[in-house]
Amino acid sequence: MSKKVSGFSKLNKTQKIDWLLEHYFQENETFKEILLSYWNSNSKLQQLHDEFIENTISNFYLPFAIAPNFLINDKLFTIPMVIEESSVVAAASNAAKFWLDRGGFKAEVLSTTKNGQVHFNYFGDKEKLTAFFKTVKPRLIESVADFSKNMKKRGGGVLDIQLIDKTATLEGYYHIHCTFETADAMGANFINSCLEQFAKTFKEEALKFDGFSSSEKEIEVVMSILSNYVPECLVRAEVSCKIDSLTTPEFEGHYFAEKFVRAIQIAKAEPRRAVTHNKGIMNGLDAVVLATGNDFRAVEAGVHAFASRTGHYSSLTNAEIHGDTFRFWIEIPLAVGTVGGLTSLHPLVKVALAILQKPTAKELMQIMAVTGLAQNFAAVKSLITTGIQEGHMKMHLMNILNQLNANTVEKEKTIAYFQNTTISHSAVIAFIDSLRN
Amino acid sequence: MSKKVSGFSKLNKTQKIDWLLEHYFQENETFKEILLSYWNSNSKLQQLHDEFIENTISNFYLPFAIAPNFLINDKLFTIPMVIEESSVVAAASNAAKFWLDRGGFKAEVLSTTKNGQVHFNYFGDKEKLTAFFKTVKPRLIESVADFSKNMKKRGGGVLDIQLIDKTATLEGYYHIHCTFETADAMGANFINSCLEQFAKTFKEEALKFDGFSSSEKEIEVVMSILSNYVPECLVRAEVSCKIDSLTTPEFEGHYFAEKFVRAIQIAKAEPRRAVTHNKGIMNGLDAVVLATGNDFRAVEAGVHAFASRTGHYSSLTNAEIHGDTFRFWIEIPLAVGTVGGLTSLHPLVKVALAILQKPTAKELMQIMAVTGLAQNFAAVKSLITTGIQEGHMKMHLMNILNQLNANTVEKEKTIAYFQNTTISHSAVIAFIDSLRN
Repeated sequence: MSKKVSGFSKLNKTQKIDWLLEHYFQENETFKEILLSYWNSNSKLQQLHDEFIENTISNFYLPFAIAPNFLINDKLFTIPMVIEESSVVAAASNAAKFWLDRGGFKAEVLSTTKNGQVHFNYFGDKEKLTAFFKTVKPRLIESVADFSKNMKKRGGGVLDIQLIDKTATLEGYYHIHCTFETADAMGANFINSCLEQFAKTFKEEALKFDGFSSSEKEIEVVMSILSNYVPECLVRAEVSCKIDSLTTPEFEGHYFAEKFVRAIQIAKAEPRRAVTHNKGIMNGLDAVVLATGNDFRAVEAGVHAFASRTGHYSSLTNAEIHGDTFRFWIEIPLAVGTVGGLTSLHPLVKVALAILQKPTAKELMQIMAVTGLAQNFAAVKSLITTGIQEGHMKMHLMNILNQLNANTVEKEKTIAYFQNTTISHSAVIAFIDSLRN
Repeated sequence: MSKKVSGFSKLNKTQKIDWLLEHYFQENETFKEILLSYWNSNSKLQQLHDEFIENTISNFYLPFAIAPNFLINDKLFTIPMVIEESSVVAAASNAAKFWLDRGGFKAEVLSTTKNGQVHFNYFGDKEKLTAFFKTVKPRLIESVADFSKNMKKRGGGVLDIQLIDKTATLEGYYHIHCTFETADAMGANFINSCLEQFAKTFKEEALKFDGFSSSEKEIEVVMSILSNYVPECLVRAEVSCKIDSLTTPEFEGHYFAEKFVRAIQIAKAEPRRAVTHNKGIMNGLDAVVLATGNDFRAVEAGVHAFASRTGHYSSLTNAEIHGDTFRFWIEIPLAVGTVGGLTSLHPLVKVALAILQKPTAKELMQIMAVTGLAQNFAAVKSLITTGIQEGHMKMHLMNILNQLNANTVEKEKTIAYFQNTTISHSAVIAFIDSLRN
């Protein structure tokens, strides 16, 4: 029986699942039942989710959680977080509480410019191309006037377009570098529509440009697409306090501050450390990206490329001791939206935005940067004091217990036992075995 | 009324939501109802999901979809994908079908070594440190024998530990670079537990080492943690075919192949393009990462750092025309697991792994790399032919219709109307308005 299939997308959801049942589940109904047990009982709500993308057969649950006590620019936030990894939300909450008592987080949007390119081949005389671009530039901007109207009303639109010569890197390769302001939208559809129109007008006008020879007129556009590299869409978040006030029952403030700064220096110096260091930042940041219906692949790509911009992949956060003050900060590129896309479609995204008190895109950039910074603070704090495993395994204990199908009594006994004992997967198995035998 | 809160994690789920209702929802019950409408009616299943992480209040739905017709190393796969972005699953399915007729995908795991470091400060004589490390190395490996037992049974364990001098970059900074094989597990907990034990033994033994002066004995471990940079855990996926067989009714094979290779050259040359190019790869890859219960932040960080390894952020895929053959391939670092973590816990992850015919970690690496390559093929194919917006907006049309609360008749009429008309957000609004007035 062949697993090849034609016209699959035209089957309805149940037919798709039945096809899986026949070809991949060996008629084992259990898997079908699991898929169906995740359908929402409200069929209209379920249909909405089915139509987000193609070939949907169920809803994948990711935990929707909240981290309270984030003081950002003197306003208190509770942050919605969607993430599957245990201990991240607990760590964010702990960091928020820690800094709540020390003045909270300061955040500031440094810039909001997005960009995209029309990539094209041109093997003719460069001066003619420059002259042509100068002539055609107003016409290019005019060509998108129609579908820029809505964006303009919201304070956005095309900012500028420039001709960039990349022939030193690749023969005959130029692009039109276009910059945009997209207000509260992430703006991908707007930008891509503009770029495709620029490309069309650019080619048409080239055919009519008298300065070109007949071969020069045949400019070949390779592709037109926004860039997720957005170093001109930058947000900064910071915490600082007197070193003395870092002292807690666990550690002395100066010792902590110095070890913390050293840990950041190491993440600056060593790419193998920097990658995991930044991954920790993204644990917090992506959880907000997901909860607010933004695109984490876009954010991840832009952030990590930014981390490598000096030619050496490095930490996105910085820390310093200046006199009697400890300072810890991040600067990070984030192109995100609070309108458009899933934001007005996914009911839980609406809830998340309500929890965040209906932020603008700029406010959301600040909230995300703060969550990333808080997460990094919590991770580095754990690493340089107790080690990461102690806290992580405590949080992970419940997952291990669920794997072992532990009942409520077994769970309580295990949690009590491991209060002061090192948790490992095998130690938990052994303890549960001892309870059961 | 203050939004500060103490002991929040100890409230139960309903109490947490009621606290939100009071402090953030202005007693608007609608938001509470939405949160509750996403709870699973099976309370035992719901409790399982609640316990994955901390402070959970609901389940965030991401669409769970499937893309059939992936021929990988002559075996047919249907790939489970979890993603919120429209058009990704359709694009993956199209690319799979395209290559199904042209020999399918070949994939190969090149290496599976994971790594982690014990980062420490030492300002003494380097030769003494080298001598100490030589002495202590067997004892370090011995110290983790106990909790390596299970991993060894599965064919994994510690591979090697090495002393690395980083003092040229940062004064007094060394690390112990440790390599691991973790079989079918991603291995984060195992690796971190080993590293923390190495650190403990290393410090203890240093205090006893006669070769050190009293200050040299006080080695300060800054932190011990795995690295998500895994260039020694590498998988390769490839498609190739005769250029003639690329010809379709849409385009001629040679023209397509040359334009495709040019698009890849541009993504190699220009970081602004490379970032979005690689983002497209991750659209497909992360959807499998999520569906199989793996950690997309870890994968993203490792992949993008790898893309910048030459000091210049660049495309992860390559394409060439060699004689009459077109070849397109990817090499990408992926540390993922098919046991441990969420894989044995999340019922839908179990379904996803069943759809993938219970892959080993190596097979999963191949499947993920193929999905990334397929996604990139589909994206570049769109970009260099019709443009990205045409296909994307067709897929996105249903989302726009749902935003406008279109009913079934309105949806059908709109889809029919936009079959041959350019879709934009405002054009759809205008058309729906025309239907309604």
